[in-house]
Amino acid sequence: ATAHFNVAELLGKHLKKDCLIILNPGRTFGALKFHNIFKRLNPDNQSLIAEAQTTIYTSRKIAEDHVLILALKDEVLLSTLDPSINHRLHDMLPPILQKHFKIAKSSIQTSIGNVGMILHCAPVLFNVGWTENSEFNYKHYVEGISPSIAKFLEKMDDERIAVSKVLGCEVETTFSWLKRSYHVEGDSLYEAIINNRAYQNIDAPNTLEHRYIMEDVPFGLVPLEAVGLYFEVDMSHTTLIIDLANKLLDVDFRAQGRNLENLGMGNGDENLWELIKRRPAACE
Amino acid sequence: ATAHFNVAELLGKHLKKDCLIILNPGRTFGALKFHNIFKRLNPDNQSLIAEAQTTIYTSRKIAEDHVLILALKDEVLLSTLDPSINHRLHDMLPPILQKHFKIAKSSIQTSIGNVGMILHCAPVLFNVGWTENSEFNYKHYVEGISPSIAKFLEKMDDERIAVSKVLGCEVETTFSWLKRSYHVEGDSLYEAIINNRAYQNIDAPNTLEHRYIMEDVPFGLVPLEAVGLYFEVDMSHTTLIIDLANKLLDVDFRAQGRNLENLGMGNGDENLWELIKRRPAACE
Repeated sequence: ATAHFNVAELLGKHLKKDCLIILNPGRTFGALKFHNIFKRLNPDNQSLIAEAQTTIYTSRKIAEDHVLILALKDEVLLSTLDPSINHRLHDMLPPILQKHFKIAKSSIQTSIGNVGMILHCAPVLFNVGWTENSEFNYKHYVEGISPSIAKFLEKMDDERIAVSKVLGCEVETTFSWLKRSYHVEGDSLYEAIINNRAYQNIDAPNTLEHRYIMEDVPFGLVPLEAVGLYFEVDMSHTTLIIDLANKLLDVDFRAQGRNLENLGMGNGDENLWELIKRRPAACE
Repeated sequence: ATAHFNVAELLGKHLKKDCLIILNPGRTFGALKFHNIFKRLNPDNQSLIAEAQTTIYTSRKIAEDHVLILALKDEVLLSTLDPSINHRLHDMLPPILQKHFKIAKSSIQTSIGNVGMILHCAPVLFNVGWTENSEFNYKHYVEGISPSIAKFLEKMDDERIAVSKVLGCEVETTFSWLKRSYHVEGDSLYEAIINNRAYQNIDAPNTLEHRYIMEDVPFGLVPLEAVGLYFEVDMSHTTLIIDLANKLLDVDFRAQGRNLENLGMGNGDENLWELIKRRPAACE
């Protein structure tokens, strides 16, 4: 999400053909932000801009020119800003990728369905000493997420689900998403995480200046909280994690991130109200 | 501090002689709470009730009947509720302990001077995964407190100092306290902690249900925040840590702990306003 702005500018300036542009992942309201930048520079281009709820692969960079794909997820949700044209998306995908994407009802579903903001930020902030200590490494998911942390994540996740409900397009819990995407067993979020084979070897960050904070707070939790508070949803767990990130990194992520103003509310661009209006009845 | 209530009841019921009772440590407003329970049960007893800013020793229980004293601190502040009789305290101490205590100006100084609430709570909450993972142990101070955590602690500490100022009895910073008590070198709180030989082998808790949370949040941070907010001091770092503890342990530490009501504000008992009125001019 940190590169969306630059990529939108580059494509906006140079793209001649109509294409399908997939933000994989969009994080929260990525397609909306991308659309506004791209269309300003290239208003006549009819490219479809879509966002995925998360990446379709779990992977790690293992060298400057090597990436290790640890798992391919099934049925990652995908949507454009206009759900009435979403049916065209599936056929436009390369056949080999088709089973890994699933057409969503609305980009509300892909944006609020962003599970990275739940799984990434809080565990790092609940393991700062371990993260910053150069003598220790740990596995982000299976060692860093303890039972108390997993319970906290469930409560944060409840806030995310409540926001999706108030936007009229309910998303599944992170627990259900894990079971569906990775086919893991378990009776709680903690168990589903611990039992996920794809998570066994994922190292934790060794600094707070990592995308798990620098991307997922401003482009995930900040817009989630902004929309939730606008609709008077209890966002106290989400708020706590943003406050913690702000204080530990001495950054104002709410000012830098996708806050309501930054989402184009109230000006002539595509904005969140349009997305809400445009959601299909099936969402409700 | 979790035992103060029971000890005050026991002594209140059975103590016949006038003695010196030292709460070592009192945590925040321990002498005030102890006094109110004790005097209700034993109003004629003239025992002096004093509180220490912290314990005079750094120690760990190593078996059911063994304690290892890692260091004896110098000049730990000590005060009764009535600073005009504090001069009697020194001579009442066993000679071998005299150098380890220093007579304070007021119990505001010993209560707000409680450094445990700064050094204990936040590092545990910033290392929850490490703490709860049974496969790993770590040293609370020298491994658990990273540069970012130490910076956060300095900001929490600024809030504590601001509360002491508003109460008219300024206390020293945790950094100065470490240098004075342990004679350590260092240019920042982080360096002073890392360089403290007495801290090298102090293990971290392996559960959140440890006195670093269960005692230091309700009997340290909660009264500090309550008094600070009453006087409109910015307590945002302290607030964040109490909120985190509440949410991670699913406990309302503000309701359970030494909040303003619990400190006897407004009823006939000794209360905080009396302490403030009674502080000597030298405090100001």
